[in-house]
Amino acid sequence: MSEVKVNEDLVKERQKCSFDVEELIHLVDGGKHNTLERKKIEQYVLSIKELKDEVPEEYLSHKERYENSVRKGCILFMVLMKGILERKPSRNDGISYNYKIINGVIKDITPFMLHFGMFLPTLASQASPEQQQEWLKKGIQMIGTYAQTELGHGTFLRGLETTATYDADTEEFVIHSPKVTSYKWWPGGLAQTVNHCIVMAQLYTKGKNHGIHPFLVQIRDIETHMPLPGIKVGDIGPKLGFQTANNGFLGFDNYRIPRMNMLMKNSQVLKDGTYVKAKNDKLTYGTMVFVRVTIVADVAYELARAATIAVRYAAVRHQSKPKPNEPEPQILDYVTQQHKLFIAVATSHAFRTVGRWLWSTYTKVIADMRHGNMDQLPELHALACCLKAVCSKDASTCVEQCRFACGGHGYMQSSNLPIIYGIVTATVTYEGEHTVMLLQTARYLVKAYKQASEGKSLTPTVAYMTKYLKSGSHYWQNTPEGIIGGFQAVATGKIKEACESLFQHVKSGKDYEDAWNLSSVRLINASEAHARAVLCEMFWKEIQRISTTVSPSLAIVLTQLAELYLNYWALEKRGDMLMYSTITKEDISSLQRRYEELLALIRPNAVGIVDAFDIRDEILCSTLGAYDGRVYERLMEEAMKSPLNKEPVNQSFHKYIKPLLIQAKL
Amino acid sequence: MSEVKVNEDLVKERQKCSFDVEELIHLVDGGKHNTLERKKIEQYVLSIKELKDEVPEEYLSHKERYENSVRKGCILFMVLMKGILERKPSRNDGISYNYKIINGVIKDITPFMLHFGMFLPTLASQASPEQQQEWLKKGIQMIGTYAQTELGHGTFLRGLETTATYDADTEEFVIHSPKVTSYKWWPGGLAQTVNHCIVMAQLYTKGKNHGIHPFLVQIRDIETHMPLPGIKVGDIGPKLGFQTANNGFLGFDNYRIPRMNMLMKNSQVLKDGTYVKAKNDKLTYGTMVFVRVTIVADVAYELARAATIAVRYAAVRHQSKPKPNEPEPQILDYVTQQHKLFIAVATSHAFRTVGRWLWSTYTKVIADMRHGNMDQLPELHALACCLKAVCSKDASTCVEQCRFACGGHGYMQSSNLPIIYGIVTATVTYEGEHTVMLLQTARYLVKAYKQASEGKSLTPTVAYMTKYLKSGSHYWQNTPEGIIGGFQAVATGKIKEACESLFQHVKSGKDYEDAWNLSSVRLINASEAHARAVLCEMFWKEIQRISTTVSPSLAIVLTQLAELYLNYWALEKRGDMLMYSTITKEDISSLQRRYEELLALIRPNAVGIVDAFDIRDEILCSTLGAYDGRVYERLMEEAMKSPLNKEPVNQSFHKYIKPLLIQAKL
Repeated sequence: MSEVKVNEDLVKERQKCSFDVEELIHLVDGGKHNTLERKKIEQYVLSIKELKDEVPEEYLSHKERYENSVRKGCILFMVLMKGILERKPSRNDGISYNYKIINGVIKDITPFMLHFGMFLPTLASQASPEQQQEWLKKGIQMIGTYAQTELGHGTFLRGLETTATYDADTEEFVIHSPKVTSYKWWPGGLAQTVNHCIVMAQLYTKGKNHGIHPFLVQIRDIETHMPLPGIKVGDIGPKLGFQTANNGFLGFDNYRIPRMNMLMKNSQVLKDGTYVKAKNDKLTYGTMVFVRVTIVADVAYELARAATIAVRYAAVRHQSKPKPNEPEPQILDYVTQQHKLFIAVATSHAFRTVGRWLWSTYTKVIADMRHGNMDQLPELHALACCLKAVCSKDASTCVEQCRFACGGHGYMQSSNLPIIYGIVTATVTYEGEHTVMLLQTARYLVKAYKQASEGKSLTPTVAYMTKYLKSGSHYWQNTPEGIIGGFQAVATGKIKEACESLFQHVKSGKDYEDAWNLSSVRLINASEAHARAVLCEMFWKEIQRISTTVSPSLAIVLTQLAELYLNYWALEKRGDMLMYSTITKEDISSLQRRYEELLALIRPNAVGIVDAFDIRDEILCSTLGAYDGRVYERLMEEAMKSPLNKEPVNQSFHKYIKPLLIQAKL
Repeated sequence: MSEVKVNEDLVKERQKCSFDVEELIHLVDGGKHNTLERKKIEQYVLSIKELKDEVPEEYLSHKERYENSVRKGCILFMVLMKGILERKPSRNDGISYNYKIINGVIKDITPFMLHFGMFLPTLASQASPEQQQEWLKKGIQMIGTYAQTELGHGTFLRGLETTATYDADTEEFVIHSPKVTSYKWWPGGLAQTVNHCIVMAQLYTKGKNHGIHPFLVQIRDIETHMPLPGIKVGDIGPKLGFQTANNGFLGFDNYRIPRMNMLMKNSQVLKDGTYVKAKNDKLTYGTMVFVRVTIVADVAYELARAATIAVRYAAVRHQSKPKPNEPEPQILDYVTQQHKLFIAVATSHAFRTVGRWLWSTYTKVIADMRHGNMDQLPELHALACCLKAVCSKDASTCVEQCRFACGGHGYMQSSNLPIIYGIVTATVTYEGEHTVMLLQTARYLVKAYKQASEGKSLTPTVAYMTKYLKSGSHYWQNTPEGIIGGFQAVATGKIKEACESLFQHVKSGKDYEDAWNLSSVRLINASEAHARAVLCEMFWKEIQRISTTVSPSLAIVLTQLAELYLNYWALEKRGDMLMYSTITKEDISSLQRRYEELLALIRPNAVGIVDAFDIRDEILCSTLGAYDGRVYERLMEEAMKSPLNKEPVNQSFHKYIKPLLIQAKL
């Protein structure tokens, strides 16, 4: 590689960094061993020349993009099968490097994502041992996806309409889509890529409905890839993001599959059509929680990408001339810019940290479940729901803020910020719609409130309620612990008010569900407040713990980020603090002053901190955020790749504009 | 036209509407005459068959999309030249129907937009009468754009680097781009479409810089469309939105133009190179204000599109089963959904209403300016800056909220919500970056605060400050007027605090601009608070006035929307209210109750209210929002247009997937 000149401003920023970037890289990765492993994998995959595009994907047509993503996806598929990416280091936050690296190489989502992410895991967890062996032995050439969502129903699973009716005569299930709304809609890879899928359908046997169950269904011929008779499958069309995910629709016209294609690890249907219920149907429930848990770490990573781009750009970009005799300052020196960006950086750390804690909680609960202890599942579920909701929404907002902070250039696809937004904003809706998630947690909070009112003890994550219900209000202190207490007091107050509204409506004669609906704005507010209390507490506690294990200079930086996060949110929610704690106007002024101090303290390390996310240029995919800071040159180089720039005059001039000019002359 | 069956839910919604939709349509249009005129134009343009696409644009490649938009743009160009769209009705909000209709037909932005929107208007306002006659007489076949922004500089105009150096020997200007950052970047139509542009450049004559001036520059040959020698021009590449705007870059290599190509209505350069300064350079300043003023109404319109889509979809979509024995309710019946959507509807009305008031203020100020009275320009400028900033950001947030409220389907391009977001979110940055705009207004507010402190009288829009600085605090009342007073008290309090921080830093020895920067987070907060006070006051006042001119049933609806807007924001900003007014917790509870009541009151009219935006399906361009509510059928019909669905097996199977499967088998 030839010597690349790094932008002078970035060189200076890196020189003045007060901590060891390498040390923070290891921390972000979860250990030095992980860092080394990651770098090895990156090096291997990113050196595959065939994975590089000559023409950036954004210039291609919808169809060409798909074909190109299959081309690259197949290369990665082989790599994955060779196990190179599978030998992933032991991570403690639930996401693997595969995702990150594939993301960077494909730039968007590969049509094979759900094969590895959902199809194989579901077979592993819900097919019986015999089925697993059978399907592996037969060596069926399966490329699969997971088909659950329909045109008419998403998060509300019970409403799914696809039916699987058992026919004891032939020992088959008849899969059917009774209406247009019953069509499967959204599964990645479903449209043109896969030949199999797991179909979630309403199971009917002996005339009775037993709810949603999974079935392995072949939809295309292995040799010809033609859709099989009775199958209607295709592309759902372009979306805001996920352009290369090949999301599809799928309809069944009384399509028959063998009985043994029902995934029978849990519930079963016997030859004669007898339904045998799973001993424990909460086990399948675990998968849903699993995905929501991993989303917290996923969005932390995407936010790290966005923050890296925006912070580096802000260090390179100079603008305006507040002082006539001085050069234009770096925009990173504007406090309003720091206000926009540092919270994004801190939020990425918060979500990664809390995501790891959540992941370890999840693995403990699942281990307990395997031993028959389900006690902690409801709490974990409540926690995963509200954290999924709040983290996905906050990350989405922060990514847009990073984009806005890059001005007009952030609007360029080549900045990669629009594509990152497309990925992150999807998490707000998928795997459990935002509001529905908050209301799920609210059900748990209402129960906990009732228990607390009855003097019963509460599970750890909501135990704070007991304290603040007793004391009535929070005695404010301008310390991190005081702020955390404030958030807990706010959550308690909001839960209490939502419950009172709910009970009041019930008392006045309303049906419980109507009362619930009438109180639902307060309930989602309570649920959000609970999530914020958990995020603040766990981020701060974890950072306190971690700080004792790292060098003092790094501990200072981590503590500043955590404190910034607490102060930012305390100020954002000052109205709530005023309502539910003894905070005064003077306290708020002092929070504001401390917040401004923290911005100034973080400023000199800002570039170093995002460098420590250690995202390679090939994975960052951004003209604005590359390590060398050659922003303007890269913007121009990328623009020159536009096929429109390959010819001096576009044919549309001769076809349309010239005739127009001639006509106008007459 | 054959009979189209309208979705039953929508039929019912329309039946229970308590007001005359037609009457509200006329109000939205600004009079029945305008409605009729609009419908006539729509009918004419939308009946041009050639404007309809067989394959939706989103499926095409970047290049194909451009070519298709030129094709359609040329048809519209002829229509515009024939004057059919130009005979626009007398509007009172600064936007013409052209924009709306073109928007719908092109779905995105036409490459000719800046020809009509900036190029011709700039010639008309800044070329001397002789120049105007000359250019029209010569009959130059000009298609033009307006080139101001550069790679290195956007909102900060003084930083522009393109130079125009006068050479008295040849009586020419030499236009030059000294660095890569000096390249023009962003102008719509610049890349492949136009042959002329207005170039804003630093004027040098007799060795002296006289700042930014406009020049008419031919960049392509009229006959061949080849870029002229010394010109480097091309496409900047794909963006988040504006896919068909053909945004371009432009660089000059000592490119010469005749002296008379400087636009000389205001400043001039004589033959010998003598610079003659404009008598009044504030006149050019008016254009900038003009564009910002129109953005308020523009985003109101785009928000109306988004709200129409989301409200109709919420009426059609059924989900979940809170009560086991009842059918799934319309999601519009969930209070959380009303909470998401009705504020979007109310905000569109607020921005349209305030936008009209702003437009009439603008026209008055400009008329005064023509008579030499510049007194009101600073106030108008301050007003336009903060309203542009707050309205563009709020609209952007509301559009995303509408999209989120449509769940997964809102993520489909065919919902049109991603495209509307692409258009609206661009307004946050263009024509004055959001934070810069707020800081511009802050300068005015700091001046006003100083004047008020000295006992001087203030201009009307900031006069409230005198009252609240005197009284110290606001005595809260739970009435619309009380809420407006609350917002004014908040704005006053925040302005005061920002000023105190600023003066404190100056006192402690800081340079004024450093003190400004250190206080800038507070300054933007003050500026935003001021904008909110103006929005609430003017919306409420205007609705009060309008209500006396309409039927009582419509007056009720308008008042509900305005009250909802006030209550929503009072609750959002309750922390500020607690800090700067005498509001109590009980007042806040009662605001919350009233807010929930208003949601319930608006609910039965929701579909009628969005119907009254009267946006034709061809302009709404949404599978989810069409008048007939055939949501699922349209989603499927649109998907079927995907070129990927035209063949049962994509070639990538044979090329990539099959070899993979064979390899995997081995």
